[in-house]
Amino acid sequence: MEFTASQIASFVNGKIIGDENAVITGVSPIESGENGHLSFVAQERFADFIESSKCSVLIVSEKLLTKKDYSKTIIVVEDAYLSFQILMNLYKEMQGRKSGIEDGAVFHETSVVGENVYVGAFTCVSEKVKIGDETQIYPHVYIGKNVKIGKNCVLYSGVRIYDYCVIGDNCIIHSNTVIGSDGFGFQLTKEGYQKIPQLGNVVVEDNVEIGSNCSIDRGTIGSTIIGKGTKIDNLIQIAHNVKIGTNNVIAAQAGIAGSTVIGDWNMIGGQAGIVGHIQIGNQVKIQAQSGVNSSTKDGDILYGSPAISASDYRRNYVHFRNFTEIVSKMNEMAARIKELENNSKD
Amino acid sequence: MEFTASQIASFVNGKIIGDENAVITGVSPIESGENGHLSFVAQERFADFIESSKCSVLIVSEKLLTKKDYSKTIIVVEDAYLSFQILMNLYKEMQGRKSGIEDGAVFHETSVVGENVYVGAFTCVSEKVKIGDETQIYPHVYIGKNVKIGKNCVLYSGVRIYDYCVIGDNCIIHSNTVIGSDGFGFQLTKEGYQKIPQLGNVVVEDNVEIGSNCSIDRGTIGSTIIGKGTKIDNLIQIAHNVKIGTNNVIAAQAGIAGSTVIGDWNMIGGQAGIVGHIQIGNQVKIQAQSGVNSSTKDGDILYGSPAISASDYRRNYVHFRNFTEIVSKMNEMAARIKELENNSKD
Amino acid sequence: MEFTASQIASFVNGKIIGDENAVITGVSPIESGENGHLSFVAQERFADFIESSKCSVLIVSEKLLTKKDYSKTIIVVEDAYLSFQILMNLYKEMQGRKSGIEDGAVFHETSVVGENVYVGAFTCVSEKVKIGDETQIYPHVYIGKNVKIGKNCVLYSGVRIYDYCVIGDNCIIHSNTVIGSDGFGFQLTKEGYQKIPQLGNVVVEDNVEIGSNCSIDRGTIGSTIIGKGTKIDNLIQIAHNVKIGTNNVIAAQAGIAGSTVIGDWNMIGGQAGIVGHIQIGNQVKIQAQSGVNSSTKDGDILYGSPAISASDYRRNYVHFRNFTEIVSKMNEMAARIKELENNSKD
Repeated sequence: MEFTASQIASFVNGKIIGDENAVITGVSPIESGENGHLSFVAQERFADFIESSKCSVLIVSEKLLTKKDYSKTIIVVEDAYLSFQILMNLYKEMQGRKSGIEDGAVFHETSVVGENVYVGAFTCVSEKVKIGDETQIYPHVYIGKNVKIGKNCVLYSGVRIYDYCVIGDNCIIHSNTVIGSDGFGFQLTKEGYQKIPQLGNVVVEDNVEIGSNCSIDRGTIGSTIIGKGTKIDNLIQIAHNVKIGTNNVIAAQAGIAGSTVIGDWNMIGGQAGIVGHIQIGNQVKIQAQSGVNSSTKDGDILYGSPAISASDYRRNYVHFRNFTEIVSKMNEMAARIKELENNSKD
Repeated sequence: MEFTASQIASFVNGKIIGDENAVITGVSPIESGENGHLSFVAQERFADFIESSKCSVLIVSEKLLTKKDYSKTIIVVEDAYLSFQILMNLYKEMQGRKSGIEDGAVFHETSVVGENVYVGAFTCVSEKVKIGDETQIYPHVYIGKNVKIGKNCVLYSGVRIYDYCVIGDNCIIHSNTVIGSDGFGFQLTKEGYQKIPQLGNVVVEDNVEIGSNCSIDRGTIGSTIIGKGTKIDNLIQIAHNVKIGTNNVIAAQAGIAGSTVIGDWNMIGGQAGIVGHIQIGNQVKIQAQSGVNSSTKDGDILYGSPAISASDYRRNYVHFRNFTEIVSKMNEMAARIKELENNSKD
Repeated sequence: MEFTASQIASFVNGKIIGDENAVITGVSPIESGENGHLSFVAQERFADFIESSKCSVLIVSEKLLTKKDYSKTIIVVEDAYLSFQILMNLYKEMQGRKSGIEDGAVFHETSVVGENVYVGAFTCVSEKVKIGDETQIYPHVYIGKNVKIGKNCVLYSGVRIYDYCVIGDNCIIHSNTVIGSDGFGFQLTKEGYQKIPQLGNVVVEDNVEIGSNCSIDRGTIGSTIIGKGTKIDNLIQIAHNVKIGTNNVIAAQAGIAGSTVIGDWNMIGGQAGIVGHIQIGNQVKIQAQSGVNSSTKDGDILYGSPAISASDYRRNYVHFRNFTEIVSKMNEMAARIKELENNSKD
């Protein structure tokens, strides 16, 4: 790609200081700017980079400018962060979307594929599958029978969707994530564990993004549900019959055990675990590595394993850090009590 | 699928109250029953659903019935839970098994494939592989050279089995699980870490189920072993030369480090970690998120990181939760001692 | 494979005691030696196995020998461990490397493939990809556009490399690892979370090994970097814009959150978590399951969640284990203080 400063300025309605024909061929983080690249300065604490950055063109929030001229081209906007995001979105769109059916993709004759769909090489589409318009499915994806995939989704290479699962519109699923593998259900017998058939499915609602290498198990009967707008990072475990509401954010390597119900707008930290068969309310924050083993109220902030109120955990943990000192103090107190007792006998 | 109440009653030897021609087209969990669906009531605490459920047909344990007539069709059995499981198993069987070799599957000329085997599109079967009768292998599976797979197994899409690994009979391996990747073994040198070749394999014994996205590394020399009847959930790490006995249950995201030996009938909780080179006995329970760093005796119940007796952990954790209060009390005691000391000087 | 004792002795420059024509067909760990197999004894504590092992041929460190004759063939060397490693490396090499392009591999016409490269069936190589000489890419690998892969790499089956990522020379990446999936970046709005485009890439430097089922996200802008010689185990999460230095060792199921910078020669334990936007120095050791939430100095040894000095953690944890006893003692002290106070009123 190649853009001039004046092209960029026109995208974000900015004013140019310097060479409007300056050309950029890439973007850099401001801390490691490169010659010929674009970056942005939106915060006071990065203002020194306006002078020192090696970038050829910078988008800068108006309030951060102190001079009339700079050694590089400046595009002046009201909010440089916002403008930069607009540009990144534009750039992403300009990279284009894939379309067409590649050689080697396999479709069952009963599958129904929408308009302007991309299906990559060696992807398998089983019987009675429906794929919505504008959806992009990369190579090596497996889609089991009776699966429904909505419009404008992206499924990256190696995604596996087991039979009867449902994916909404505008969903993104990253590579090697598995949707609909069997729930972990066994009946104990004297001879060993007997498998309980897992006959349900997974329903992923609209606008959900799921990272790479996640496992989302199908319900035993009924559905495992990922609610609208929820965002799931990488390497996450969602067990059978979990119901997750709308607009949750779940960080990498978290795990949610079977049949737990999670409300809306919660934030679940990385490597956190939630036991089965409990209710998490709304707007709950669970700190990374916490282990939640009982139901929560709306707005709770939790930390620890087992998790308690985060402020209590932090306060108690300060004492834990001083535990050796506390015990010394206690021993010294014991000695002083002994002394007092001896004295009082006199 | 479509069944009448009388068909279902005949499968489980039940007695019908109501319309024997009532038709069901699906199954529901009792809490979210749907018209036209089947569900079951086996416990007192769900007895209200016998009246209120929207399901058209319910299987109910005899002792829970209090009336002669209901608004829906009831199939009366001795133990509704058991009867329902029989039905689920029947239903699973009726969905049929896949068979035949799909176009695009690739076989080395020296591989040997049993009777009535299914191999999906784009699955690669390398030299000298043996696949037992009735085994089903979905698309996109990679099977390295000299691998042996037993009878009646199911390998879902995206499973990878490295060279020389052995899978027993009646095993199920879910999508994107990797069996036999190199153990994590390096020799420290001044220039960096030198790879130690990993020349062993993985042996998965009969009746093992392994969830999706697991990593089971090959032995350095000798085998990593998963014993008969052991069930492994999703996203689990089993390191090189681990030996796991029979009938263990290991929950999602647990990890077991190199060369550790695990007995029989243990339960390992989600996100638990077990260090390398230790022995876990039999019938041990390890709570979720625990970190076991020393060998255990049979029947131990462990919790915490590092793990200690679960009852001790819980009792101590209650004090941890009150730590701020405990410290306050201690400070108050210190003041009272001071006071006593001052008084005694008088 | 089949080797005679004299062949083996010649590889490691050893002296034979016993039958120089003894044939071995495999290798065993010393604890579970098999007839016809080779093993080694390098340490005093395994010396009893020189007599008792069922192996037909043993490589033994000279200093451990006490007799002139043994019931099996002995190959005498100075350091048996070293000699055995030389043999394992030789054996690994003798297994040969794969080469050639298998039927079913797909290449974009603009891709450039080096000499003596192996590409397995159903692997997809996108536009402008460059693959270096001697590199081996197994079946079912997806390589996005503009990806560069160096010389002498091994990418196992099911690896996914998103667009624009760069892999150095001599790298090994195990099955189902994903390089370059989108970072987990969203902007909160009233309607829900808006995706922030992830336009950067991942750079994996030379001599890096990455285990199976890892997720390494691309930078938002700029690169996520895995430094030269760093070794990464299985099921590990590396978030967007993380920079990892040289010669680090990261154990299974660890996770590193966004933009964190990690120096050289660190050891990160299994299931450890490191929060985003901090600096880890050099030669730091992070114990398994720890949660590091602030920057560290060189040489720190850390433990706990949140992590503190490992020696402090261990010392404090001893008190935690005795917490119930400590509280009892405190209560008893309180009673004695009360008693003293009562006495002093008399």
